[in-house]
Amino acid sequence: MTEVRVAGVGLTRFGSHPDRTGRDLFATAAERAFADADVPRADVARLNYGNFIGALAEQQGHQAPLMAEAAGIRAPATRYESACASAGVAVREAVRTIRAGDADVVLAGGMERMTNLETPAVTEGLAMAADDLFEVHAGVTFPGAYALLARAYFEAHGGTRRDLAHVAVKNHANAVPNEYAQFRDPISVRDALDAPPVADPLHLYDACPITDGASAIVLVSASYAADNDIDAPVAVTGAGQGSDRMALADRADLTRTPAAVAAAETAYDAAGVEPDDVDLAEVHDCFTIAEVLAIESLGLAEPGAGVAAARDGVTTADGDTPVNLSGGLKAKGHPVGATGGSQIVEVTRLLRGDHPNSEHVPDARVGVAHNAGGTVASAVVHVLEVAR
Amino acid sequence: MTEVRVAGVGLTRFGSHPDRTGRDLFATAAERAFADADVPRADVARLNYGNFIGALAEQQGHQAPLMAEAAGIRAPATRYESACASAGVAVREAVRTIRAGDADVVLAGGMERMTNLETPAVTEGLAMAADDLFEVHAGVTFPGAYALLARAYFEAHGGTRRDLAHVAVKNHANAVPNEYAQFRDPISVRDALDAPPVADPLHLYDACPITDGASAIVLVSASYAADNDIDAPVAVTGAGQGSDRMALADRADLTRTPAAVAAAETAYDAAGVEPDDVDLAEVHDCFTIAEVLAIESLGLAEPGAGVAAARDGVTTADGDTPVNLSGGLKAKGHPVGATGGSQIVEVTRLLRGDHPNSEHVPDARVGVAHNAGGTVASAVVHVLEVAR
Repeated sequence: MTEVRVAGVGLTRFGSHPDRTGRDLFATAAERAFADADVPRADVARLNYGNFIGALAEQQGHQAPLMAEAAGIRAPATRYESACASAGVAVREAVRTIRAGDADVVLAGGMERMTNLETPAVTEGLAMAADDLFEVHAGVTFPGAYALLARAYFEAHGGTRRDLAHVAVKNHANAVPNEYAQFRDPISVRDALDAPPVADPLHLYDACPITDGASAIVLVSASYAADNDIDAPVAVTGAGQGSDRMALADRADLTRTPAAVAAAETAYDAAGVEPDDVDLAEVHDCFTIAEVLAIESLGLAEPGAGVAAARDGVTTADGDTPVNLSGGLKAKGHPVGATGGSQIVEVTRLLRGDHPNSEHVPDARVGVAHNAGGTVASAVVHVLEVAR
Repeated sequence: MTEVRVAGVGLTRFGSHPDRTGRDLFATAAERAFADADVPRADVARLNYGNFIGALAEQQGHQAPLMAEAAGIRAPATRYESACASAGVAVREAVRTIRAGDADVVLAGGMERMTNLETPAVTEGLAMAADDLFEVHAGVTFPGAYALLARAYFEAHGGTRRDLAHVAVKNHANAVPNEYAQFRDPISVRDALDAPPVADPLHLYDACPITDGASAIVLVSASYAADNDIDAPVAVTGAGQGSDRMALADRADLTRTPAAVAAAETAYDAAGVEPDDVDLAEVHDCFTIAEVLAIESLGLAEPGAGVAAARDGVTTADGDTPVNLSGGLKAKGHPVGATGGSQIVEVTRLLRGDHPNSEHVPDARVGVAHNAGGTVASAVVHVLEVAR
């Protein structure tokens, strides 16, 4: 198997970009990734691109060849769509392609425009990640679905709104120095507790925002990096994907996300690491309860213990295993089709030591990215390591 | 490299299915593929699924895990979207995965529901395969775009509406015995010439219909087939993908489709075959002119000679190289996200000798499938061979 390295990473600022098209956003992320990588565009053998609601936001399907043009590359280009895990899947397939020896250089990433839609249209668009016939037509939107997961968790394991508030406070604090983050003001537990309800027990600060943005990663084989003198100190050593039943009503246990558990097992096995080896993680905290479920899926907390991890300081910036040092979806923002790629960008920067929050993890060698689609009917996990 | 075999194939009837959901259609195709393959669902390591306008037709994104459920499998499931080439890309990535040794059994295919939308909504949906900003907003729809290609071709090489009519007549004739085809009545050259115009020089019989349908293929490694005594006489020996600029205005030459040329070259190289070796082809004839461009891209006709191939009997059922013995998109129908998979199904049946049109190609050993997205901004080519 060929080893896969991250040669370069690029992001747009996450937030509202009312005057920029989707192709423009992806072009910026790609430009930054190529500048970071010092890899010529002519060497790119393929583009793996994630996008979710482009049909609604820009009436634009078939985006992959368009984004290849925007990125200045001529290569086969494929769009992956797994709802909020779209870019995670795109990266995973890029890793697979390089590992198999089918390509030496792949550009992966994603883009989403969301803020140009009215909020009800965004809510409807995001609801397409759930089961339209058996959930959406019954009135479930995503805040409602995750509220059900939070209630089920609280009932099984205990936990309170205050526990979840600590997740939000942590992630907003982490976003303060992140130049790409949508929200860079800290919040207090009191702010979170006093915020208006969205879907009980979730209130405003339990939810991620609506965001425009793009991510791009230049992935290369280790041999290409060596042959071309490319500085690529971070390796993708494991990748895994899992799927689950779409509708919550069809699942046996709402307090676990087996798709993510399966993805994590595959990724850990491929990398030859254990949860104990993980120094930091970027996880899919579209809602605060989602971060709790994520860290339990990754084995960073025992089932039932995840809800207290932020409050107890285990996952804070100065904790044992910092989670979402980027600010997470929660505070950095969640441009759906870009998110899985942006997590790889953040883990790479943290492991390279050039992230504004790198000071909290000076000795980190192993980072994990956890990207989920819908209520985790899809999940992708990557293990990144400082190359030995 | 591991050899890839087609273990089983399944289709729904193509046409109008007003009383069936998308998941129901895919379940039928998968059921038939598993029955044909005699492979247990528990052995499936992944689902690769193509769909284009599900966001509009069923307000359903994130379809891959839903379709895995419908097919009765529990495995990582990924949706590929490359407009009308979505299922072609899904199959190509399945082939890559098996060749790399990452999986022994992959279910690939696709589904589209279209007839439940009003025609203007379908036209708008299909237009998402073109460049929204620079083509669609300028008034170009797909019949208009292909009419431009036909005019450019006629201007460069000659050719007439009568030449194109022969393509339609051929494909409608081929569809007559195909139990899965949408249109099973033959038409005459006169019918085609007298049909109402859609976008000059294309008239009604130059265009494929609006179709619901699904396709599914069980792909396995040759070693899995041998170990499990699976009868899988057809191998996928080559696969290639290409991309091009999206907007016609950005292309140097409207009489060629370089994405398909690149895809064909890759596929032929992998298979170690030449165009001369090809015994039959299923190509992406969304419009009659598209079949002309396709056979030239595949090297089955010289540039400029493709337009006369049907009229001269080269590509008819009893010609040297029969093209679209299934009836093609033109008469069999074009459920967009299923089409690339259905081509693999048809080539497999033709090579196995169990297609109603197999009598025309009793000695066929090499078949090619050509699937295109938009105005061939994406293209996928597969080479299938009777295993030696």
